[in-house]
Amino acid sequence: MLALNRHPSGRHFLQIPGPTNVPDRVLRAIDQPTIDHRGPAFGELGLAVLSGMQAIFQTSGPVIIYPASGTGAWEAALVNTLSPGDHVLMAETGHFASLWRRLADRLGLRVTFLPGDWRHGVDAGAIEAALRADAGKDIAAVCVVHNETSTGVVSDIPAVRAAMDRSGHGALLMVDTISSLGSIDYRHEEWRVDVSVSGSQKGLMLPPGLSFNAVSARALARAETAKLPRAYWDWRDMLGVNGKGYFPYTPATNLLYGLHEAIEMLRAEGLPAVFARHRRHGEATRAAVQAWGLEILCQEPDGHSPALTAVLMPEGHSADALRKTVLERFDMSLGQGLGKLTDRIFRIGHLGHFNDLTLCGTLAGVEMGLAAAGVPHRAGGVAAAMQRLAQAPAV
Amino acid sequence: MLALNRHPSGRHFLQIPGPTNVPDRVLRAIDQPTIDHRGPAFGELGLAVLSGMQAIFQTSGPVIIYPASGTGAWEAALVNTLSPGDHVLMAETGHFASLWRRLADRLGLRVTFLPGDWRHGVDAGAIEAALRADAGKDIAAVCVVHNETSTGVVSDIPAVRAAMDRSGHGALLMVDTISSLGSIDYRHEEWRVDVSVSGSQKGLMLPPGLSFNAVSARALARAETAKLPRAYWDWRDMLGVNGKGYFPYTPATNLLYGLHEAIEMLRAEGLPAVFARHRRHGEATRAAVQAWGLEILCQEPDGHSPALTAVLMPEGHSADALRKTVLERFDMSLGQGLGKLTDRIFRIGHLGHFNDLTLCGTLAGVEMGLAAAGVPHRAGGVAAAMQRLAQAPAV
Amino acid sequence: MLALNRHPSGRHFLQIPGPTNVPDRVLRAIDQPTIDHRGPAFGELGLAVLSGMQAIFQTSGPVIIYPASGTGAWEAALVNTLSPGDHVLMAETGHFASLWRRLADRLGLRVTFLPGDWRHGVDAGAIEAALRADAGKDIAAVCVVHNETSTGVVSDIPAVRAAMDRSGHGALLMVDTISSLGSIDYRHEEWRVDVSVSGSQKGLMLPPGLSFNAVSARALARAETAKLPRAYWDWRDMLGVNGKGYFPYTPATNLLYGLHEAIEMLRAEGLPAVFARHRRHGEATRAAVQAWGLEILCQEPDGHSPALTAVLMPEGHSADALRKTVLERFDMSLGQGLGKLTDRIFRIGHLGHFNDLTLCGTLAGVEMGLAAAGVPHRAGGVAAAMQRLAQAPAV
Amino acid sequence: MLALNRHPSGRHFLQIPGPTNVPDRVLRAIDQPTIDHRGPAFGELGLAVLSGMQAIFQTSGPVIIYPASGTGAWEAALVNTLSPGDHVLMAETGHFASLWRRLADRLGLRVTFLPGDWRHGVDAGAIEAALRADAGKDIAAVCVVHNETSTGVVSDIPAVRAAMDRSGHGALLMVDTISSLGSIDYRHEEWRVDVSVSGSQKGLMLPPGLSFNAVSARALARAETAKLPRAYWDWRDMLGVNGKGYFPYTPATNLLYGLHEAIEMLRAEGLPAVFARHRRHGEATRAAVQAWGLEILCQEPDGHSPALTAVLMPEGHSADALRKTVLERFDMSLGQGLGKLTDRIFRIGHLGHFNDLTLCGTLAGVEMGLAAAGVPHRAGGVAAAMQRLAQAPAV
Repeated sequence: MLALNRHPSGRHFLQIPGPTNVPDRVLRAIDQPTIDHRGPAFGELGLAVLSGMQAIFQTSGPVIIYPASGTGAWEAALVNTLSPGDHVLMAETGHFASLWRRLADRLGLRVTFLPGDWRHGVDAGAIEAALRADAGKDIAAVCVVHNETSTGVVSDIPAVRAAMDRSGHGALLMVDTISSLGSIDYRHEEWRVDVSVSGSQKGLMLPPGLSFNAVSARALARAETAKLPRAYWDWRDMLGVNGKGYFPYTPATNLLYGLHEAIEMLRAEGLPAVFARHRRHGEATRAAVQAWGLEILCQEPDGHSPALTAVLMPEGHSADALRKTVLERFDMSLGQGLGKLTDRIFRIGHLGHFNDLTLCGTLAGVEMGLAAAGVPHRAGGVAAAMQRLAQAPAV
Repeated sequence: MLALNRHPSGRHFLQIPGPTNVPDRVLRAIDQPTIDHRGPAFGELGLAVLSGMQAIFQTSGPVIIYPASGTGAWEAALVNTLSPGDHVLMAETGHFASLWRRLADRLGLRVTFLPGDWRHGVDAGAIEAALRADAGKDIAAVCVVHNETSTGVVSDIPAVRAAMDRSGHGALLMVDTISSLGSIDYRHEEWRVDVSVSGSQKGLMLPPGLSFNAVSARALARAETAKLPRAYWDWRDMLGVNGKGYFPYTPATNLLYGLHEAIEMLRAEGLPAVFARHRRHGEATRAAVQAWGLEILCQEPDGHSPALTAVLMPEGHSADALRKTVLERFDMSLGQGLGKLTDRIFRIGHLGHFNDLTLCGTLAGVEMGLAAAGVPHRAGGVAAAMQRLAQAPAV
Repeated sequence: MLALNRHPSGRHFLQIPGPTNVPDRVLRAIDQPTIDHRGPAFGELGLAVLSGMQAIFQTSGPVIIYPASGTGAWEAALVNTLSPGDHVLMAETGHFASLWRRLADRLGLRVTFLPGDWRHGVDAGAIEAALRADAGKDIAAVCVVHNETSTGVVSDIPAVRAAMDRSGHGALLMVDTISSLGSIDYRHEEWRVDVSVSGSQKGLMLPPGLSFNAVSARALARAETAKLPRAYWDWRDMLGVNGKGYFPYTPATNLLYGLHEAIEMLRAEGLPAVFARHRRHGEATRAAVQAWGLEILCQEPDGHSPALTAVLMPEGHSADALRKTVLERFDMSLGQGLGKLTDRIFRIGHLGHFNDLTLCGTLAGVEMGLAAAGVPHRAGGVAAAMQRLAQAPAV
Repeated sequence: MLALNRHPSGRHFLQIPGPTNVPDRVLRAIDQPTIDHRGPAFGELGLAVLSGMQAIFQTSGPVIIYPASGTGAWEAALVNTLSPGDHVLMAETGHFASLWRRLADRLGLRVTFLPGDWRHGVDAGAIEAALRADAGKDIAAVCVVHNETSTGVVSDIPAVRAAMDRSGHGALLMVDTISSLGSIDYRHEEWRVDVSVSGSQKGLMLPPGLSFNAVSARALARAETAKLPRAYWDWRDMLGVNGKGYFPYTPATNLLYGLHEAIEMLRAEGLPAVFARHRRHGEATRAAVQAWGLEILCQEPDGHSPALTAVLMPEGHSADALRKTVLERFDMSLGQGLGKLTDRIFRIGHLGHFNDLTLCGTLAGVEMGLAAAGVPHRAGGVAAAMQRLAQAPAV
């Protein structure tokens, strides 16, 4: 078997902002014999995960499960609802928003990309303005990222929804929840999102390989007329057989076992408790960063991510050198800076299957890594985090 | 954890022609902690599986690995090489060939579908004729299925290649090897196939969730001009980072662990031994069917599949009723008839992680099931298979 | 990781009469993180397995669980109840009865060993006679083996109990149920057995490493005065803390996880169904042996074991050569002849986690092995077994 | 499957001084199908683990592997070498030394128990004096504990050896290495120990269920004349078949798979690196305790254990209340005080599969627990440990 860890002893700290640490329960669930995907046991599994995902998206409408990465679910959201040359409004919140925009370009859509500095969330006012300015109702969809994994900034989706409502423009609202679902409160139905996009490897605590679309009735109706070519991603094939728990082509059966287990875990903890836990860990992490005297990338006052924290390096210091030191000396993976932030930031993932002591170990690894790599900072970050963690029950 | 088997004791016999029985070694490999897909350990894993898949496709050219089902790899083959309205020549060998054709239709391609009776392989002569008749070189690609999973008939790919060569027509050759790769001798490079499509859940002994394209230089060149919109499936993004073992978006890491292990197992057994084993098991299965006095669907003299055997039900008897009896009484899943063969045939999968005694158990389940379901037949199928198995070394 | 199987493909058939094939569910349960054996979660586990084992022994009295093999539980039964030089009456039913006798010798007990031909069960009349002849009540205990794993003969424990009752002798009754518990109906309390000895690796479907004593009130009382030195095996230490689910020294925690799962499986199937299943498989196996024209070792008319079948080799043929052929050609382990039966018999285990199709595969392996090894026999054994299996529902 | 953890998220910190955190690699190794313990594959496994354990005990002499807990290996050491009424010299270093003494009492040995205060190691001078005083050479064996798991004090075995040599007395030397083997340098052969006793669940990183005796030639010779009754524990039966990798009764096969994997891991890290890692973690832990202003139980200047640290509670504070708080709030198990130290101390295990960041998380849990439980202390323990950890490479 492949040696996955060169460190001789102890458990790796996988503190990138996803894939996250997969619970043993989920790994063991995946490690069960594959079954007939057209047999009766599979039907029960299928129904259970489909309804379980509705609860997690907080919707009574359909959820589509793809054997694919999140990038596939981005593509699915667009090809099921849009036609070649359609105009979409996107917002540059960071690297992943930029990648989604590039994907839309490639599919032959026309994208208006509201500029951003990668340190703030979506500007709902700018969206409202753009929609009001679109007298011809040319814009077919507004696409935003809920939690920008590249920056650690959360966008205010209800504010976007309200802005769209105020504009009176009928564009669809599509939201990337890849690194928020299962970590940060997200309400597909209440917020009247038309397509929510997500993936398995973040708050859902699974390995990568599954992705999701939650779909509104409006979006479904749009799928009847949308003309972008599609087959693998076609919602209609899925919905045609999902009703009995089956899929139109071979599903990723073993990952669905894991999804079933993860849904059980989230249900047992309860979504409000899950969200509160992530908020606490985000607050404790920011307390540590502030104690170190380092700068948090996020400048959106209410937009600090409960799922990850991006930290700016002091001028003249390499984030990637720090990350290498931390990996080699302390067996911890931190997230790298992406796109224009390459080598400028490192990202601490604190989402998924996680608890207070693992967070303390994580922050200790960063603090010792800063010292080992010669990065100017003050000690005391772990101590500050511990003070914050002491305030509220760990559970 | 979800109860996957209602039978109180013993191991389920998963004898559908895929997903196949996943070896414990592969399941345990998948059940390892997910790692950073941008870290150094992942790079080694990526390089190992990419080069390992070249050996299995018998090619020195690139192999693309998708986090997707085989249906996705069908789509990938087309969108990377073709433009809207392009003309493709396909051959109706069975249900999966028909599904691939439908997928091509949906993508906006024009398909000429050479008719077939679902009991024979591809008619290489008909392909040659069609290409010769295409004076304007309108046909951009010929798409055929190597092993029709719905019928148990193998098509002669070298014969198709020769026919195409004789025609002097420059169309690309694309081959679906989803249920042949790792079970039946298949030589991407020697046979000058342009795109080979495959999946993880058959001869590769993995759960579903990974799929593949092996790609020729000609196909790669075509990708530069092909105009079907594509993003998730784009070979160029993959090849841009595969060289260091990475992927352009989050790969299905844990399934790649399993792929690494499966490649090791196939390498240890040796592909010639793997193919010989499947041939023996196919022969033994056909000996059983003949002893039962039942009719094998395949009528192509040299086209009997080493991977599965499809059996016609006697007139007036339901294949699905038989399958239900076998599942309930003997805890074995058999493949159903698909498309126009629904309820007319059952399919015995004998591919993947398999050995002589499991085959005997499988055939005993069919024989006892035929009796229990009141299907007219002669006893003695298992005995006939045992005679065939006795002739050659089990290893 | 150690390569456990040199066969390149397929699942090994472990058809020795124990250790038996461990269900995936049990293996996965064992593959969970070890917990604090003094913490609250452990207490619940301990209580669950202790009460679960009472149900399996069919007793309301205490069950002791040792981190040890069955041999240890033999020793425990003796050292907790007897004093140096005590006289015990044992019956030579086979190799394991002989080993238990040797163990008693080593502990300094005086053993009267009722002779046997290894083809019959215990002679209850001989026990009655021996007890009646023991006017001085010198005999402290009668020790018999319920299912002789070395011969495939079941002894009639109720008959032994009745004989002891008729004799009016107060000796303790100790019964080895190592290969019967969880496979053959066994009633510790109803049959008034004083000490039942068992192990994890047979009908309980676990790996080896746990063993058991079920204990009557009389036996417990005897433990107060018994003088054989004891510490590890002392029931009193166990019972002193078992009441809250704990153990006096570190228990084999992960094997207890497996025990918990196995108990759940046996409970779900129901003991009567478990016993009926084993009887069917024993009958089908004997039908095969008779069809082959080979001789079954057991000559006790009502004593054929539902757990295993021992088969005599034709004169001049080596059982071990046959077993070697079967292992190398068909990847199946059969039980060897032990003691004076070495190389004279082979044993087919059909107990534990097992079903009809695996039995058919097993018997096919024997039948093909007999042919490959040149052992005179008639074909048709598998067919005969299938006829028997067809008669009753598989579930 | 039993729910082992009531905490809704994250991984439990099992920081008792054994059982320790079992590496995933070891758990997965155990989670493989059980094989025939008399077949050829088993023989290879047996030879590999027997020779691997010699390397870990640092001996070229025999090692015995029992399917049993450490308590069984204590018993084995005594019953193989001693006769009823023999005189043994033991030293009261703590709870486990006292338990071993009680076990010797129960076996009918006469024990002289050198008194100790549970805060120091063995007094080699007292042993020398006792042996010199034993003119009649009545003392058959000296039994000491290398690392007292109940106190965190290491005894100086070479000093004991030297004292015994100086005395000119021929008593056997027996050493309990249950919580030192694989964590603290221990040299069975160089130190001329006669019987070393150990277990699987500490430095060997396995679940409990295996235990060990490493045996000198003198001890083996003594086994020929020792008269304590024995069977399960008899070395001679073991050594009679260990030469080909087999065992005289059914071994705990799946735990041996884990042992094989653990030996590979220790070999890959290298014993000197393993010992150095434990020393570092011990030093860092003591730095934390000192920073908290709490008292370490150990008062032996050179005897601080690299495997665990026992901490005295301030007067009037309950260690068990603290442990309960830590378990409930922070999902960490700490070791309890045993025997006369009940509720007076808590023990931090830092042995086995462990690394710097997990240690930091552990110490953070203690520090936050002290605060939450209202135990007087100074903050800064984690910070002090981090300073210590920063000094040396993390290996």
